Amino acid sequence: MTAKEKAQHIVQQQMYDNDAFSQWLGIEILEVDEGYSKLKMTIRKEMTNGMGAAHGGITFSFADSAFAFASNSHGRKSVSVETSISHTVALQRGDVIFAEAKLQHLSRKIGVYQVAVTKADAQVVALFKGTVYRTSKEWIPES
Amino acid sequence: MTAKEKAQHIVQQQMYDNDAFSQWLGIEILEVDEGYSKLKMTIRKEMTNGMGAAHGGITFSFADSAFAFASNSHGRKSVSVETSISHTVALQRGDVIFAEAKLQHLSRKIGVYQVAVTKADAQVVALFKGTVYRTSKEWIPES
Amino acid sequence: MTAKEKAQHIVQQQMYDNDAFSQWLGIEILEVDEGYSKLKMTIRKEMTNGMGAAHGGITFSFADSAFAFASNSHGRKSVSVETSISHTVALQRGDVIFAEAKLQHLSRKIGVYQVAVTKADAQVVALFKGTVYRTSKEWIPES
Amino acid sequence: MTAKEKAQHIVQQQMYDNDAFSQWLGIEILEVDEGYSKLKMTIRKEMTNGMGAAHGGITFSFADSAFAFASNSHGRKSVSVETSISHTVALQRGDVIFAEAKLQHLSRKIGVYQVAVTKADAQVVALFKGTVYRTSKEWIPES
Repeated sequence: MTAKEKAQHIVQQQMYDNDAFSQWLGIEILEVDEGYSKLKMTIRKEMTNGMGAAHGGITFSFADSAFAFASNSHGRKSVSVETSISHTVALQRGDVIFAEAKLQHLSRKIGVYQVAVTKADAQVVALFKGTVYRTSKEWIPES
Repeated sequence: MTAKEKAQHIVQQQMYDNDAFSQWLGIEILEVDEGYSKLKMTIRKEMTNGMGAAHGGITFSFADSAFAFASNSHGRKSVSVETSISHTVALQRGDVIFAEAKLQHLSRKIGVYQVAVTKADAQVVALFKGTVYRTSKEWIPES
Repeated sequence: MTAKEKAQHIVQQQMYDNDAFSQWLGIEILEVDEGYSKLKMTIRKEMTNGMGAAHGGITFSFADSAFAFASNSHGRKSVSVETSISHTVALQRGDVIFAEAKLQHLSRKIGVYQVAVTKADAQVVALFKGTVYRTSKEWIPES
Repeated sequence: MTAKEKAQHIVQQQMYDNDAFSQWLGIEILEVDEGYSKLKMTIRKEMTNGMGAAHGGITFSFADSAFAFASNSHGRKSVSVETSISHTVALQRGDVIFAEAKLQHLSRKIGVYQVAVTKADAQVVALFKGTVYRTSKEWIPES
């Protein structure tokens, strides 16, 4: 298995297929590689808030899934410790959005990633930055 | 109407009753006052991720609703600009959690709030800090 | 040595006495305990920016020192991984400010702290939240 | 004056020349344009902490100056409301570092910027994300 195939196996079979909330969000995995993920989803009515726009938690959750996929793709189980999000544009029902997570720094125990959430026309709707703690557990145990 | 009654009217009738995602989360409003909200919810199976714990977006969304309710309770429509969350304890299906949002600073255009998400035994499971931009639109127009 | 005496020894003798930048800031240690620190400093002319107010980096640095002292006081060398600050009130030359850092969550490898920076009248001028990675190195080696 | 010349005038003459703390840091302005700045500085002994590395406040302050220059370059006086920084690599005395601030989103009242702090070999040592509130005051009053 190449590093990319291993990343795809972890994210698709081990994570996404058991990830009930990412499935509820309707997340579609467009691409996965080591330290990288690109996702797509569509805003539905049950994702909106009292102002008629997408709830801030929806774009965060979408970015957080991209972050989780990218940060676990290296092979070690990794958990979010601190994240930050800037919401720049309100989203409406029917909007199609993309999340692209990129590795920024990886050390033995810590990983840092940035995620940009954009519309089809590349307009940035949210910017996310997050840090994971990398546990010593492997997704695919050495046999 | 007192300030507290006005806050309750905005949050319950104008926000929550139209907030499809907070309703999907099963959020229960325990208390609302000017610059303050206290909420309750329970982790369900469809809120879990590929590690079997609550998805990080669930605790964020819960804290973000508490933040939105507290920051709009002053009367002006307010939108999140930047927020940060630290996840400290993983949550499981069936866990009952509370979010308490408190005003930290209010100026003419900006509001800053902290939200603590805790379990029934007061253990902190997530800490949230957020900033809103306060628009000039009122929830309850002067008549 | 009690836990408090150990915390004070680490922060005063091992950290502060070698901390050239905290000394340049004129930081005074008011209190230290396990997971806790309270500091004081005064804004000087060389700390101001092009708008005539204290540079945002000054209040961050002050909060960051409080965070470093509180998070290292448990005994293990701990390094900042991600932090966030909300600046709420501009400070002027001559302003006396206080930083109070409090432990929010401690696990084997991660610690989370909040720091409030206030004026003498308790007005909040900045709110800081930060996460450390706790290395396995001890400040005071077992003999 | 072009937009770039206006940006340079504001940052160099109106901000930097009055910015005592950026001068203390030894910040050198490499480039400024609308919504953009690139800076350089060197870690000195008085910038180190009790662990012998650069104090976390130094890299924050450096990134914060880049952020202030980029966000004020559009012409309106703008103040930081919330920022976040991830420290990824410890810096030592003598290290030369660069900060590059880029506009991510600009609305009438809010601006969002990212700043990467790197060493000469392009290694990322800190990642910064920040939001400003754009006041209605102009740096260069219309005559």
